[in-house]
Amino acid sequence: MSIVKTLNSTDLEFLQSVVSRERCSTGESELDLHAHDESAHKNQRPSVVLWPISTEEISKIVAYANEHQIPITPYAAGTSLEGNPIPVQGGIVLDMRKMDQILEVRAQDLQVTVQPGLDFKKLNEKLKKYGLFFPPDPGATATIGGMVANNAKGIRAIKYGSTGDQVLSLEIVLPSGQIIKCGTRAMRTSSGYDLVKLFVGSEGTLGVITEVIVKLTGLPREFMAVVACFDSVEQATQTVVQMVQAGLAPAALEFIDTGIIQLVNNFKKMSLREAPTLFIEFQGSSRVALEDEINFVKELCQENRCQSFAAGVGRDERDRLWEARYSVHESIKSAYPGQRGYVVDVAVPISAYPDIVRFANEAIISRKRIGPVFGHAGEGNLHSEILYEPNDPTQQALAKEANHAIVHRALDLGGTATGEHGVGIGKREFMPKEHGASLELMRQIKKLFDPNGIMNPGKKV
Amino acid sequence: MSIVKTLNSTDLEFLQSVVSRERCSTGESELDLHAHDESAHKNQRPSVVLWPISTEEISKIVAYANEHQIPITPYAAGTSLEGNPIPVQGGIVLDMRKMDQILEVRAQDLQVTVQPGLDFKKLNEKLKKYGLFFPPDPGATATIGGMVANNAKGIRAIKYGSTGDQVLSLEIVLPSGQIIKCGTRAMRTSSGYDLVKLFVGSEGTLGVITEVIVKLTGLPREFMAVVACFDSVEQATQTVVQMVQAGLAPAALEFIDTGIIQLVNNFKKMSLREAPTLFIEFQGSSRVALEDEINFVKELCQENRCQSFAAGVGRDERDRLWEARYSVHESIKSAYPGQRGYVVDVAVPISAYPDIVRFANEAIISRKRIGPVFGHAGEGNLHSEILYEPNDPTQQALAKEANHAIVHRALDLGGTATGEHGVGIGKREFMPKEHGASLELMRQIKKLFDPNGIMNPGKKV
Repeated sequence: MSIVKTLNSTDLEFLQSVVSRERCSTGESELDLHAHDESAHKNQRPSVVLWPISTEEISKIVAYANEHQIPITPYAAGTSLEGNPIPVQGGIVLDMRKMDQILEVRAQDLQVTVQPGLDFKKLNEKLKKYGLFFPPDPGATATIGGMVANNAKGIRAIKYGSTGDQVLSLEIVLPSGQIIKCGTRAMRTSSGYDLVKLFVGSEGTLGVITEVIVKLTGLPREFMAVVACFDSVEQATQTVVQMVQAGLAPAALEFIDTGIIQLVNNFKKMSLREAPTLFIEFQGSSRVALEDEINFVKELCQENRCQSFAAGVGRDERDRLWEARYSVHESIKSAYPGQRGYVVDVAVPISAYPDIVRFANEAIISRKRIGPVFGHAGEGNLHSEILYEPNDPTQQALAKEANHAIVHRALDLGGTATGEHGVGIGKREFMPKEHGASLELMRQIKKLFDPNGIMNPGKKV
Repeated sequence: MSIVKTLNSTDLEFLQSVVSRERCSTGESELDLHAHDESAHKNQRPSVVLWPISTEEISKIVAYANEHQIPITPYAAGTSLEGNPIPVQGGIVLDMRKMDQILEVRAQDLQVTVQPGLDFKKLNEKLKKYGLFFPPDPGATATIGGMVANNAKGIRAIKYGSTGDQVLSLEIVLPSGQIIKCGTRAMRTSSGYDLVKLFVGSEGTLGVITEVIVKLTGLPREFMAVVACFDSVEQATQTVVQMVQAGLAPAALEFIDTGIIQLVNNFKKMSLREAPTLFIEFQGSSRVALEDEINFVKELCQENRCQSFAAGVGRDERDRLWEARYSVHESIKSAYPGQRGYVVDVAVPISAYPDIVRFANEAIISRKRIGPVFGHAGEGNLHSEILYEPNDPTQQALAKEANHAIVHRALDLGGTATGEHGVGIGKREFMPKEHGASLELMRQIKKLFDPNGIMNPGKKV
C-alpha cells in the first residue's frame, strides 16, 4: 500500500484527450474530495480525477492504465464506510457521477437499465409514476454502481434481499479495456457461470461497472410501523430471534440500543423513549394481513415483557421512524465532534444475535470506549461506531482492539467480518480467518481478471 | 468429446484402495446405469463407478484423477434433462448417493448442513417436525448436490427463489484435491468474492460439492390452489403477465397447454378441462390475505375471459394439482413410447412470455412435430418436449431445428437458453450467442479452477 503512483505529463495528456480538459482535474480541492470516504481510514489523494461519460471512454482509460500499470479506482458518492474507494496507491480516480442516466424503464418487465452513477433515490423518484421501486436502501446517498460494488443491503434487505439479489445484468469494462455484458434479462437462468454475482460485491477490484439492469418491485400499498421498547438489550434481541424463527416477513427489523436513541433524540429533537428499542415495519397489499402480523409481533414483544408497543399506520409514521434511524451516523458525529470511529459491521446466524450484541457492548465498555450499538437485527447484522480522539493513540488502540474482538467473535459464531459495508481497507486482515483456503482462490480470480493489479489495488483480497 | 478415457489396472487398484472394493464397480450394469440421465443425449459409459462416503475419499480420488488426467464426473439421481452428468469422456463417475446424511439441523438459525447425495424430499420429510422446509422443488427425485450444481428451480422459485438463493455455504473439493469451504452462516455478507454463487450452477465443472449449508423456510400454514382455463393460449399467457406485473406473489404460477392436459388426463385418469390452463397456488400464514389475493387473480382471469375458475382451499386440492403437474414428463413418455424428445427450457422477460409461447407452438407445429408446451410461466420459463422417432433422422432434424429456433427467439427477446436445466451437452452451442465476450472469461475461470480439464469435461463452457 505504500507505493503511490504519480502520473507524468504524457499520461495526463492522453487522459485529457479521452475525456476532454473539462472532465479531468488535478486541482488540489478535487484531489482532496476524492481522497476519502465516510470512514476514518487514512486519506490518500489520487493523481488525477476523471469524469467519464461513456463506456467507450472508460474502456480507453482502463486500457491505458493497464498498459502503463497505473492504479485506477472507481468513485461515486463516497458514502462507503470501510475506505472502499480510497485510492491508496494514487493514480486515477474515475468519478462515475456523470454517468447517472436512466437508460430504459421496462415497466412491463419490472426492469430498468441504468448507468452506475445514478443515485438510487433519484431512480426511485422517477419510478414512482410506474408504481415501482428499487428496494435496497443503504440510507446514505449511494449510487447504483457503488451499491452493486459493495452488495449494499440496508434496512429492507430482510424482505427484498440485497442489491445483488436485484441485479440481472451488468456491463463491465475489464482491466484490459474489453467491454463485456453478463447476465440475462430473464428472471432465472442456469446458463454459464454466474459472472454477475462475481462482480457484485467485488468493490471495483475486477473491473468497472458501466451499466446495470436491475429488477424492480411494485410499490407496496400499505405500511405499518412499530416501535417496541424493552427493559433490557437481551429481551429486545430475543424478540428479534423469535420473530425471525417464526417466519415473519417484516420489511425492516432494526435494533437500536439506548445510547443511540439518546443521541438521535438530541440531534433530531425527538422524544423517543430511551430504552433498547426495535423499529419494525411491515409492507404489503392487504391491511388485514399486516394487522394480523402486527398482532403476532405484539404477542411476541409482550412475552418478552416490552415496556411499550406503539403501532402506527401509514406512511407519515413510517417516514418519521426511518428519518430517526437514518440519522444515527450524523447523530454520533454531531454529539462527538472531531472524534473518529471504528465502524462495526459484523453479521452472525440469527440465534447468535443476542450473543454478539452482549459481547460487543462488553468489548467496548470494558475498554472504556463509547460505541453504542444498533443494526439490521433481522439479518443478524450488528453495527456500532467505536469512538476515539484522533490524537490519542491509546484510545485509538483500544477502539481498534474492541472492533477486532467483535469481528473475531462474529467469525467464531459462524458469521462474517462484513455484513454490508464490504472489505475495503478495514476488513482485509480478517479475510484469512473468514475464508481460509478459499482466500487463495479469490486471489487467483483477482489475478486472472486483473493481472497487473491496477483495479482498486490494496483492497478486498 | 470424442476421446474416451479408459483406466488401466494401476488406476483401478488405486481407486479401490481409496473406496474399498465394495464401492468401486466396473460391472456392465453399473456402467450402463451411469451412462445417461433423463435426456435423449447419447449415452456414454464411464470406465468405473465409485461410491465415496467422505470428503477425504473424494479429495484423494480427484487428486489422483488430476495427476493422471482422468475425467471425473459427479453423478447422483440422474434426473437432469440436458445430459449434465453423462461422462462423455469416460473415466470416473463419482456416485454421490452414499453421501446422503443430514449432518446438522440448526432449526434456531433456519439452517441445515447436508451431504450432497441427499434427496431433497427426504430432507423435507425430516424437517417437518421443526415446521421448516427447503423450498426448491424440481419435481423429480433430485439430490441437493445436483440441485446446487444445476441451480435447480421448479414451480416454487417464483416465491422462494432458486436453489442457489438458499445456499449459504459449500464445501468443495477442487480439481487439485484441495478441500475448501466458502460462504458464511450469516444471512448476509459483503466479504470476499462470492465463490458460492460461482459453484452454484457450475454443473460439476469446477469441483466436487461435498457439503452444503442451506437456508430453510417456515412451512406455510395456509394453501390455496386455483385452476383457471382459457379459450386461447394468448389469454392464458396474458393473464400470467398481468399477474406478475401486478406484483402478486403466488407460490406457483404454471402454464399448461391443452395438449399436456390431454396427456395427463389419460395417464392419471383425471378429468381436467382440456384447455389452455393456469395452475396457481398461494401460500401464507393468513387465510384472509390469501383470499384477498385469490379474488384479485379471479378478476384478472375474468378480464381475460377465462372459461372456468376453480379455487380450492387446502392441502388435498393442492396435492392433486401438483401430482398432475409433476406427471407431465411421465405422461408424455407413456403416450409416445419409444420416442425421444428435445427438451425446451428457455426463459424470457415476462412481457415476452406470450410471444415465446406463440412462437414455440408455431415452430413445432410448422415442422409437423408433436411438442405440447408448458412451463413455469410466472418466471418466464417455457418447457416442451419435441418428439421424434429415434430411427427417423428427418424427424430428429426437424425436432432439433424447432428447438434451435425457439432458443434463438428466446435469446433475441433478451432471454436465456436454459432457465433451469443447465447447459449440459444440449445448450453448449448457444453459449457464444448468449454470453458473447464473457464466454471467454468463463472459459478462463474454468481453466483457472481445472487446468487439466478433468471435471465433467465436454460440458458448460
